[in-house]
Amino acid sequence: MNVTDDRPPHRAPAGAAPGTITVAPDAAQPRIEVISYGSAAEAGAPARVEVASIRDIPELPPQHGIRWVNVTGLGDEDVLRDIGERFEIHELALEDIAGTSQRPKVESYGNFLFIVARVPAPAPEVQSADVPPLRTEQLALCVGRDFVITFHESAAAVLAPVRRRLLAGGSTMRKRGPDYLAYAILDSGIDAYFPVLENCGEHVEELEAEVIDAPTAGSIGAIHSLKRSLLTARRAVWPLREVVNSLIRDESPFMSRQTRVFLRDCYDHVAELLDIIETYREVATGLVDILLSSQSNRMNEIMKVLTIIATIFIPLSWLTGLYGMNFDPASPWNMPELSWRFGYFYALGLMLAVAGLMVIWFRRKGWIGGSGK
Amino acid sequence: MNVTDDRPPHRAPAGAAPGTITVAPDAAQPRIEVISYGSAAEAGAPARVEVASIRDIPELPPQHGIRWVNVTGLGDEDVLRDIGERFEIHELALEDIAGTSQRPKVESYGNFLFIVARVPAPAPEVQSADVPPLRTEQLALCVGRDFVITFHESAAAVLAPVRRRLLAGGSTMRKRGPDYLAYAILDSGIDAYFPVLENCGEHVEELEAEVIDAPTAGSIGAIHSLKRSLLTARRAVWPLREVVNSLIRDESPFMSRQTRVFLRDCYDHVAELLDIIETYREVATGLVDILLSSQSNRMNEIMKVLTIIATIFIPLSWLTGLYGMNFDPASPWNMPELSWRFGYFYALGLMLAVAGLMVIWFRRKGWIGGSGK
Amino acid sequence: MNVTDDRPPHRAPAGAAPGTITVAPDAAQPRIEVISYGSAAEAGAPARVEVASIRDIPELPPQHGIRWVNVTGLGDEDVLRDIGERFEIHELALEDIAGTSQRPKVESYGNFLFIVARVPAPAPEVQSADVPPLRTEQLALCVGRDFVITFHESAAAVLAPVRRRLLAGGSTMRKRGPDYLAYAILDSGIDAYFPVLENCGEHVEELEAEVIDAPTAGSIGAIHSLKRSLLTARRAVWPLREVVNSLIRDESPFMSRQTRVFLRDCYDHVAELLDIIETYREVATGLVDILLSSQSNRMNEIMKVLTIIATIFIPLSWLTGLYGMNFDPASPWNMPELSWRFGYFYALGLMLAVAGLMVIWFRRKGWIGGSGK
Amino acid sequence: MNVTDDRPPHRAPAGAAPGTITVAPDAAQPRIEVISYGSAAEAGAPARVEVASIRDIPELPPQHGIRWVNVTGLGDEDVLRDIGERFEIHELALEDIAGTSQRPKVESYGNFLFIVARVPAPAPEVQSADVPPLRTEQLALCVGRDFVITFHESAAAVLAPVRRRLLAGGSTMRKRGPDYLAYAILDSGIDAYFPVLENCGEHVEELEAEVIDAPTAGSIGAIHSLKRSLLTARRAVWPLREVVNSLIRDESPFMSRQTRVFLRDCYDHVAELLDIIETYREVATGLVDILLSSQSNRMNEIMKVLTIIATIFIPLSWLTGLYGMNFDPASPWNMPELSWRFGYFYALGLMLAVAGLMVIWFRRKGWIGGSGK
Amino acid sequence: MNVTDDRPPHRAPAGAAPGTITVAPDAAQPRIEVISYGSAAEAGAPARVEVASIRDIPELPPQHGIRWVNVTGLGDEDVLRDIGERFEIHELALEDIAGTSQRPKVESYGNFLFIVARVPAPAPEVQSADVPPLRTEQLALCVGRDFVITFHESAAAVLAPVRRRLLAGGSTMRKRGPDYLAYAILDSGIDAYFPVLENCGEHVEELEAEVIDAPTAGSIGAIHSLKRSLLTARRAVWPLREVVNSLIRDESPFMSRQTRVFLRDCYDHVAELLDIIETYREVATGLVDILLSSQSNRMNEIMKVLTIIATIFIPLSWLTGLYGMNFDPASPWNMPELSWRFGYFYALGLMLAVAGLMVIWFRRKGWIGGSGK
Repeated sequence: MNVTDDRPPHRAPAGAAPGTITVAPDAAQPRIEVISYGSAAEAGAPARVEVASIRDIPELPPQHGIRWVNVTGLGDEDVLRDIGERFEIHELALEDIAGTSQRPKVESYGNFLFIVARVPAPAPEVQSADVPPLRTEQLALCVGRDFVITFHESAAAVLAPVRRRLLAGGSTMRKRGPDYLAYAILDSGIDAYFPVLENCGEHVEELEAEVIDAPTAGSIGAIHSLKRSLLTARRAVWPLREVVNSLIRDESPFMSRQTRVFLRDCYDHVAELLDIIETYREVATGLVDILLSSQSNRMNEIMKVLTIIATIFIPLSWLTGLYGMNFDPASPWNMPELSWRFGYFYALGLMLAVAGLMVIWFRRKGWIGGSGK
Repeated sequence: MNVTDDRPPHRAPAGAAPGTITVAPDAAQPRIEVISYGSAAEAGAPARVEVASIRDIPELPPQHGIRWVNVTGLGDEDVLRDIGERFEIHELALEDIAGTSQRPKVESYGNFLFIVARVPAPAPEVQSADVPPLRTEQLALCVGRDFVITFHESAAAVLAPVRRRLLAGGSTMRKRGPDYLAYAILDSGIDAYFPVLENCGEHVEELEAEVIDAPTAGSIGAIHSLKRSLLTARRAVWPLREVVNSLIRDESPFMSRQTRVFLRDCYDHVAELLDIIETYREVATGLVDILLSSQSNRMNEIMKVLTIIATIFIPLSWLTGLYGMNFDPASPWNMPELSWRFGYFYALGLMLAVAGLMVIWFRRKGWIGGSGK
Repeated sequence: MNVTDDRPPHRAPAGAAPGTITVAPDAAQPRIEVISYGSAAEAGAPARVEVASIRDIPELPPQHGIRWVNVTGLGDEDVLRDIGERFEIHELALEDIAGTSQRPKVESYGNFLFIVARVPAPAPEVQSADVPPLRTEQLALCVGRDFVITFHESAAAVLAPVRRRLLAGGSTMRKRGPDYLAYAILDSGIDAYFPVLENCGEHVEELEAEVIDAPTAGSIGAIHSLKRSLLTARRAVWPLREVVNSLIRDESPFMSRQTRVFLRDCYDHVAELLDIIETYREVATGLVDILLSSQSNRMNEIMKVLTIIATIFIPLSWLTGLYGMNFDPASPWNMPELSWRFGYFYALGLMLAVAGLMVIWFRRKGWIGGSGK
Repeated sequence: MNVTDDRPPHRAPAGAAPGTITVAPDAAQPRIEVISYGSAAEAGAPARVEVASIRDIPELPPQHGIRWVNVTGLGDEDVLRDIGERFEIHELALEDIAGTSQRPKVESYGNFLFIVARVPAPAPEVQSADVPPLRTEQLALCVGRDFVITFHESAAAVLAPVRRRLLAGGSTMRKRGPDYLAYAILDSGIDAYFPVLENCGEHVEELEAEVIDAPTAGSIGAIHSLKRSLLTARRAVWPLREVVNSLIRDESPFMSRQTRVFLRDCYDHVAELLDIIETYREVATGLVDILLSSQSNRMNEIMKVLTIIATIFIPLSWLTGLYGMNFDPASPWNMPELSWRFGYFYALGLMLAVAGLMVIWFRRKGWIGGSGK
Repeated sequence: MNVTDDRPPHRAPAGAAPGTITVAPDAAQPRIEVISYGSAAEAGAPARVEVASIRDIPELPPQHGIRWVNVTGLGDEDVLRDIGERFEIHELALEDIAGTSQRPKVESYGNFLFIVARVPAPAPEVQSADVPPLRTEQLALCVGRDFVITFHESAAAVLAPVRRRLLAGGSTMRKRGPDYLAYAILDSGIDAYFPVLENCGEHVEELEAEVIDAPTAGSIGAIHSLKRSLLTARRAVWPLREVVNSLIRDESPFMSRQTRVFLRDCYDHVAELLDIIETYREVATGLVDILLSSQSNRMNEIMKVLTIIATIFIPLSWLTGLYGMNFDPASPWNMPELSWRFGYFYALGLMLAVAGLMVIWFRRKGWIGGSGK
């Protein structure tokens, strides 16, 4: 599970032989859960066990035709290799399962269908004021004739509702094959993006309000971080569309006609997700324009204040300087105003007049509001 | 009916079983209206009833071959389930009908054609100075061999003209099948975008005038809001194009050849809508450039005023400061100007000359207009 | 003929029955001109009449096989309906003819080919300093086995050269069928964009010069208006390409093989028009960058002047203020400079030195040119 | 040969009959060169003549099977018409040959293949400091069974190496048909873009250096001009790709299988040209960002200088003003500092302290470098 | 090996005959390495020799069916021609091998498959503070029935792991044909982009931090350089996708079905590379916005400081100027404040009040923080 999601992930050293399984250094130890169930009338309740090793997986009960093997944690390449051997999984598929940063894709091997999806990763525990960046994690599915195997690091939240529905009585899920189970998992993974994007939507609206009303020095960083999250989401969801489309379109013995009707529903959801992501991306791009315009407005505001104050007082100061000159009053032509009886008031009046004219002029230009001096 | 139209909508909790009907919390109670009519010569006038429950729907009169069931308000999942049972509507279609934020699409089920469209939502009652954001709402149609069922929250304005034409004597609509009725409803929904976009067009022109002549601090917000409205419109209309195209192109027992000719007309309207939306979007994007340029112009204007005033008066103030120095006149070399008979006039003249030169220089630079000092 | 060309046009009220003919309120009264001609050796000269009503159209002379009915002005729906009846034109086509803001398209009806094109509208009479925005108007053609009908508001300038060539002796046009006439009209309409775009091109170059050398407050508005004109042109020409392509590609009894060779030429012209439009649009977009950069340059220029003047004089003014302080000269330590014999010159020299150092510093920074003080 | 290359070119008046040959007013008088050669063993050396008129073209020597007619200068429509008659060239092709601003295209006529390409025009003779804008000119080829005719205004530089190889002994060109000659000419024309783009590349790097280090008022204009050149190149090369692709793909009796292998090489070159053009366009667009950022940096620099100087001296000037007030020293509370023995030094010290604090503060903010006062 | 990778490369002079081999002037002398191996049981260990000339290549040992000829350095056209003759390589392929700036492509010749790829070039030795620009170099492969020939300048790092795996015992590579060897080389070349892009990713994050926190004058240049590197990478990887896709899709005798399964893996890697490149490109574009916004913020900050200082002190200075005027105190109306007993304190108090009001006003505007004066 890589942290920033948009840097190249840890992977096998360049030039390694294809099929080399290379686990990520921070991957968790695998835990294996097996649920077996069947659609036949005598199938009874599904059986669920957690096993320590792949060798502990019990035989498939005869009344149960289908097994779901759920592997949480990809930190042990031996476990992966064991599973691969037991279920005859191609070495290239195993390599992709271990390298947890694959693009979503669907590949058809002779004995199973290999699906890689990306689902939203759980948000980090640490609480901070900032909105955490959206991260995704890999969810790999192998869909065979009588099994579904899921591999993931921490996608428990995505799988829990599916397990609950499967174990609950009266679920239609038990009446159908492994393809329907795979569909249900995919659907749950896709639906998990909606609340995540809803958070993004709220964040977008907060940013809109902030940027229009009171942009801060951090606003541009927040917009940038939002855009990266949306980029991450798009990178995960865009190829998912092709995956679902390919499942609907391509004939495969592992995907029944009935389930394809349900996958159309899945496809609509992915299309809707992409719509939402693109909309937010456009809005976020618009926020940058708003921000630049707001900053420009603030600059205009600041400059107006400076200009008004300076433009009014600079001539006044010049006048005070004028009458502060020391020309010799011995000559009657040298600053006779100084010896006028009301010279001071004359000077004050002159300044008032100059200031008043300036204020009127600024008002005409619309730089200061209607209430005047 | 979601309010902002571009955030992820309320929907069934992630992982819910497919076909789960989840009504929106603010959806209205359903009202059901049934109109039956027929194309046969003996059909007579259409019959229209409003029923409280789906069980009250009368039998289809033998002379009438076609029924239009119009469900306004999607707030009661039992009603939806009842209708679904009565008309054999697939559970996935019912889920989409209840989840009122679907993308427009067309799906073919065995016994009916399922069409989801989005039409402009009525503007909110509250009056404000701001232009209200454009919102859309879902209009779902089920087109069967002898019925059309419409589901919506508040699209009465879109359906009213169709009902009027249907009930009015001499309408060609009565002579054709349910597919023509569905076409008429779709066409009315599409045409409803034109006045809405006309409003947008007027708003665009107001903004253009405002932004070029006198941009305010709110201009960027208004442009942003306009762009969001256009984004909303595009998100609704773009997939409509594919819907209409698919109705024209794909063979379906529920859509006759004759009606397809009329759908071509529909298609042209959708294409025209998209043209208009894209044009406005480009214009709105151009407005941001105008705004930034206008703000930059205003800044230049402000700075010019400051620079002219400051540049003229700063040297003058220095001169007054100069002759305000207190060098001891005992020395004949210390500021002899002060004791000149016309020292004051000399000083005033010097200042006038400096100011005049500055004004000439600014005029040469084109910073001040032709009328000079 | 709508004025701004990019707002939603006047059209039938939403929900009106399809085929409703709704004339624009400002449309002119129709004038009908009929030219009949034939390709046979005995055909003789074409006959041309202007008729007041569709009923006055004379019978087709037996030696003439082809008739061109040219309807100028679409202000009377009865006339349109009469023509529709006489030539069996589908009601949807008539609706499109009356609604003069259709997108260019080609539609095949059983008995005729319906082509909608948009041609440049004549520039308004009123002369102003501004470049008038580019407007387009609708030109509808119905091409049958023995007739071409053209409907338009004021596209006389586009049709005149075709009529002249048709009436002139020795024209190849008379030797061919109505499809060739339709081609000639389309070609003339497409070629009419070239001089209009040439005007745009000149306007682009004027704007380039203005924006680089001396941008004004109106520059951004002019660029914006240019972009809207180009948008209008693109909106009209882009679908024309598909129209011409469809005429070349789709088999139709109303378009002969020979004429298709000529339509390839038409197609090249449309492609060239789009090339030119896209080029101008890119250039116009670049002009906004130039404008912003120019404004930024001017701001830098203004600020440099202010900074140079202020930075030189502010220290000087401080010096004059310093020696204008009134410390009691009774103490020998209080401003002894004031009583120096050459104190004044010392002060002036000090100021000169400060100013000189500043000037040298500004020169080093490259803010003032090589000629120094 | 149009000068600016991106304005609509001189062409036949709108509405002229198709096939009207209209020569450009500034086109040169035609010069005709004929080279005949053959692949047979007894063919001997190629024969080359320059003829004044098309009627002077000698008969094709029997041992030579192929003729290359090279027409330089398109200023005489009679010459074009004569050639058209002699070689049975379609009137539409002749119109395109004379109108020298066609888009590159390939058209198949019954008796020859008509290819229009655009090659770089020779740079103007006049030397100036500015980089001349890239211009292209039309090169038309008619490829028949035993002839290639080339029409151009001044593409001598493109054809020279082909002629040289053809006339030189041992060239493989002589062993192949007219299609190979046409390929060689096209290839030479395409390769002629590489040095031109290399110039652009050098210009891009100069501009990069200039814009990052010392942007001038002319920088934006230079970038704009570069972008227009690249636009011109793209407009010429983009359709060339389709031309070459169509030559490779479409079966034609005038293009042999062998030559198509060589055209694949041509195609690679065109693809590479487009790659380079797009790369430069992206870089040039990035230069605008750099320029705006540089200008903004310079503004910040200027404002910092002003702010530092003003912010230091404004309080100091206030202090000098303070002690320049004329309060009556008769009251002991009126400015007692003035009569202190070390009042002047106290004032100077106060100012020094204020200035020092300001300098420290600016240093803390990082506005002035590490060397202090 | 061209240095900047995005300027047109050195190539044969325009108009040179096709198939002309033109070595780059700075290309290294060729070194030839031959490894022969076989899949048969009796094949034994691979044999590896380095030969000085192509004539020294030993005969293929009978037990070995496959030979890998690795040519490092393309500086001698005779060597290339010798190899071409020995392995019957088409002259156009040889031309492409020597011209080391081809776009990636795959071409099928009768007797071999010709693949051109671009792999990351080794970073230059010289160490500098700046991140070196990403460069790519050409790697050409000829895949025949029993040989693979690789041509490159300095791609040793890419080939080393493949050679090591081939020579190591137990490698699956030896059991397969030359197509698998070619796949392994391509795969190694593609994987070599991952660490290079990881460096880019780190550089992106450094730039993000720098630009948000403390943009320098060099930031825009660094972003620009990053964007050019990404452009270079995209230009190399984008056509690689088509190459790999074409190898998977097109039937060819030189590419077995088994190997195509592995190429799908290759394809996924290329798709992932493009994803990463596009993501970085979007992020880098966003950095420009951040930079402009940061610069604008800094300008606002600077202007605020200037405005606050100036706006507070300008009125104060005017007051000091006022009481520095020299009106004759003989008149009791001339500045009576000057002779007040506490006139000085009154003036100081007045100034304090003005300054205090200003500070309060600035605080209200939010220009200065909460701690006030």
